[in-house]
Amino acid sequence: MIQISNPAAFTIKIQDQIRSVVDRFLGGNTFVLGSMVKEFEESFAGYIGSRDCISVASGTDAIEIALRALGCEEKEVLLVANAGGYGTISCLAIGAIPVYCDVNPSTLLVSIESIVERVTSNTAAIIVTHLFGLAIDCKLVDVAVNAKLGKSIPIVEDCAQAHGAKVDDRRAGSQATIGCFSFYPTKNLGALGDGGAIVTNDATLAEHMRDLRQYGWSTRYLQALPGGRNSRLDELQAGFLSLFLPYLEERNAQRREILKEYVKSGATAVHAEHADSERYVAHLAVCTVDSREKFVANLNKENVSTGVHYPFLDTDFPTTQHLDPTTLPVSEAAKTRIVTLPCFPEMTPNEISLVCAAIEKNHQFFEAR
Amino acid sequence: MIQISNPAAFTIKIQDQIRSVVDRFLGGNTFVLGSMVKEFEESFAGYIGSRDCISVASGTDAIEIALRALGCEEKEVLLVANAGGYGTISCLAIGAIPVYCDVNPSTLLVSIESIVERVTSNTAAIIVTHLFGLAIDCKLVDVAVNAKLGKSIPIVEDCAQAHGAKVDDRRAGSQATIGCFSFYPTKNLGALGDGGAIVTNDATLAEHMRDLRQYGWSTRYLQALPGGRNSRLDELQAGFLSLFLPYLEERNAQRREILKEYVKSGATAVHAEHADSERYVAHLAVCTVDSREKFVANLNKENVSTGVHYPFLDTDFPTTQHLDPTTLPVSEAAKTRIVTLPCFPEMTPNEISLVCAAIEKNHQFFEAR
Repeated sequence: MIQISNPAAFTIKIQDQIRSVVDRFLGGNTFVLGSMVKEFEESFAGYIGSRDCISVASGTDAIEIALRALGCEEKEVLLVANAGGYGTISCLAIGAIPVYCDVNPSTLLVSIESIVERVTSNTAAIIVTHLFGLAIDCKLVDVAVNAKLGKSIPIVEDCAQAHGAKVDDRRAGSQATIGCFSFYPTKNLGALGDGGAIVTNDATLAEHMRDLRQYGWSTRYLQALPGGRNSRLDELQAGFLSLFLPYLEERNAQRREILKEYVKSGATAVHAEHADSERYVAHLAVCTVDSREKFVANLNKENVSTGVHYPFLDTDFPTTQHLDPTTLPVSEAAKTRIVTLPCFPEMTPNEISLVCAAIEKNHQFFEAR
Repeated sequence: MIQISNPAAFTIKIQDQIRSVVDRFLGGNTFVLGSMVKEFEESFAGYIGSRDCISVASGTDAIEIALRALGCEEKEVLLVANAGGYGTISCLAIGAIPVYCDVNPSTLLVSIESIVERVTSNTAAIIVTHLFGLAIDCKLVDVAVNAKLGKSIPIVEDCAQAHGAKVDDRRAGSQATIGCFSFYPTKNLGALGDGGAIVTNDATLAEHMRDLRQYGWSTRYLQALPGGRNSRLDELQAGFLSLFLPYLEERNAQRREILKEYVKSGATAVHAEHADSERYVAHLAVCTVDSREKFVANLNKENVSTGVHYPFLDTDFPTTQHLDPTTLPVSEAAKTRIVTLPCFPEMTPNEISLVCAAIEKNHQFFEAR
């Protein structure tokens, strides 16, 4: 069975280097927020092109801490409803009010028209999710918001699926106020467990977020910042991430090549037209199909796993039923048609061919673009 | 310089076994909530004597999730103010109202009289912290609460400093409604990074907490439980903890022996009279001294590090200034007199002798008991 992702296929290849990281860790004597965390934060900030990187325990924590630093408690935050719920979970954790925008039918990323429609002077932040690996140009969002309100609203880039994607010369995460990353193992840059990071060019926000990740301490054992919690990246995970980072570009390119093979075989990949662009890092090979259930069963017969990212909109959550009802016709329509095919850099040529053959055999499910 | 704790002294001794855990991890293909987490949860529940163990990302997260599962939001939670603030941080994270109890002057653990004074039918939970490694008999708390209210209030045992401590036949964590553990590296049972766990005998609470640690999902990607966040123990850390657990009893005994040497040398250790009891696991060798600043300087000259656990009461935090003022005379008085001496199982006989000599040389700082 070909899985949709397989981080072990990468780690087994570089297991000796992973063991060297463990050796270095065991030879040191810091376990939390030590030199390996510092090194990774510096190299990741450098790679993304941001002044500061603050590593944290997970991608969801990254968004939560970013929203807190922006003072979003009890205020409205704009976001999409088709990105797995992590933005909503972060909003609800701090008592912010999610206000959902619909998505663009051709990219399934947030619709700028929808942002313009829903943004008001009460909006405290806009979460822009670079879904499936395609980076949005945050300048366009900012220009549109300014045209309506005559001012900017802080933008939080959710880069959990877009490590390394570039809009012109700026990498996802460095375009706007704050960038949030997850290093969940299946990500384009994944740790060997949970992890996350926040990047920013704003020194004041950086200091605030650095304090928030460690109990909101102003000095050891004195909580000064409301909302401070414990959210730190392990030294060992930081060491692994420093090892993996130099492989990211090449592995992103390999992902794009896989997607291009699927498109050649007739798959209607949502981001097919970006498959040659550095703006796209092919985190998830999401396609749209008719009769998804039957398609999934057919691929299963060919030993090809599939996924759905995501089967629910955030507006479906029992936890969001108290919010004002909203209509998201494009998000709703896409929800029943999206399907994710296997895509990870270590796929063998044979595995890629098998998926392509399964696509060709099931061409009738792919809609005309 | 002899540090107050030194987890690296343990890990270096068993580095080959640690590498074996890494090898096993690299040979598997699960990275989050996989077989190594499951194994550790089972063995830790078995060791503590609880039905269920739910591993999480940190000890603070453990308390937060426990309080959420008990429905403490916007309700009063009783706790002490001299335990480092983790209980307060957890309360504030979920919008519960901390109500502080004073401590017993001889143990510096929560005073049952103070609980009786402050508990009301509005109290949603009582956090009982087994501070410095001495377990409180939770039955006494329950009996006292019942005598006043005619009913029990859920008790959350904060066992971050008391892994393995036993009250009669029950280990700390299994005495009350829920037990919370931190596996911060310096703990008696410490991971090689952040980690925590919750134990309980209540199957319904266990299921609730298991869902809360993973976004509050009822099914993958559907948030059904308010307050659900991401708080998981890494597979690797679970593997390390399974390796370390069988050493816990012996290492706790070694800690007690060190404390006894200090007492013989004249140190007024807060928990000296429990140094032979399994109720005490000597997590921190806390003593009380006059003129602490001078004492600390003198020990520093003898190459003996000291700490203060803790230099602030929770009532000192800028984040608690909105609460009703409270007087905690015993906690306040202890705050300026407590000092922590080095205590970890891998201390060499020579290191222990050096600390004992420093104690003897500075006998004038130790108060008469």
